[in-house]
Amino acid sequence: MTTKQERDEYIIIVGCGRLGSHLARLLSKARKSVVVIDKNEYAFHRLSNDFSGFTLEADAIEIDSLLRAKIDKADVVVATTDDDNTNVMIAQIAKTIYHVPKVIARLFEPSRQQIYEQLDIETLCPTILSAEALRNNIIGEETEDLK
Amino acid sequence: MTTKQERDEYIIIVGCGRLGSHLARLLSKARKSVVVIDKNEYAFHRLSNDFSGFTLEADAIEIDSLLRAKIDKADVVVATTDDDNTNVMIAQIAKTIYHVPKVIARLFEPSRQQIYEQLDIETLCPTILSAEALRNNIIGEETEDLK
Repeated sequence: MTTKQERDEYIIIVGCGRLGSHLARLLSKARKSVVVIDKNEYAFHRLSNDFSGFTLEADAIEIDSLLRAKIDKADVVVATTDDDNTNVMIAQIAKTIYHVPKVIARLFEPSRQQIYEQLDIETLCPTILSAEALRNNIIGEETEDLK
Repeated sequence: MTTKQERDEYIIIVGCGRLGSHLARLLSKARKSVVVIDKNEYAFHRLSNDFSGFTLEADAIEIDSLLRAKIDKADVVVATTDDDNTNVMIAQIAKTIYHVPKVIARLFEPSRQQIYEQLDIETLCPTILSAEALRNNIIGEETEDLK
């Protein structure tokens, strides 16, 4: 039996939309072990031809699906579905039940980020990230303290 | 009459969705002159109370709307509507007809970014930005050359 330290890093991506599939491609290129879960098999067409990981057609808010994806062995879980509540629920399950070392939930709604960070859930909000990138592009990074 | 150099930087944001309204807030906080255009007046409810710029209810793919927003005096135009074609069209109008010094179009579809960059249109794709931020968060930035 191997321990987490002996294995390659194992990453579960929930949701194979634009973000999930693009992340899967980047991690696959970096030679990471990746499994992508989506409840719609058609979503996997977004994965590029050079994606070398696995896909699992399943509803990730069901514990059984997460076990099939071997969540108990995962080093990282990223929840990227198009529903904030689903992403946060999956993140909480991964973190509190399966003690996954790194868990990140994608958030659509910027105003929610602070709430979840108070719950100690790491989030990524593409809107906030993009607005800050645009702001820095337009007026420079010196105003970072104004956000 | 004043020249561009004598005035404060004047920024037009097209689209008052999550990204447009959040960017408006950041630029407004940085004391920039901002006008936000959206064809749906209700969209302006997304602007925070501390937004100090102007709003214009209009369809920005009509030249007349852009003139009402004083595009001929703009230093920056950012197109953030929920439609990639609209954003690119507005960017092209701003750049080629009104010679706006800085023009950025938000893109939903990552695969289009390369095409528009070949057309010399500056783009921001939240999906690519977010996937790269997640990748760097998960495995570090040393794999930057693998993207």
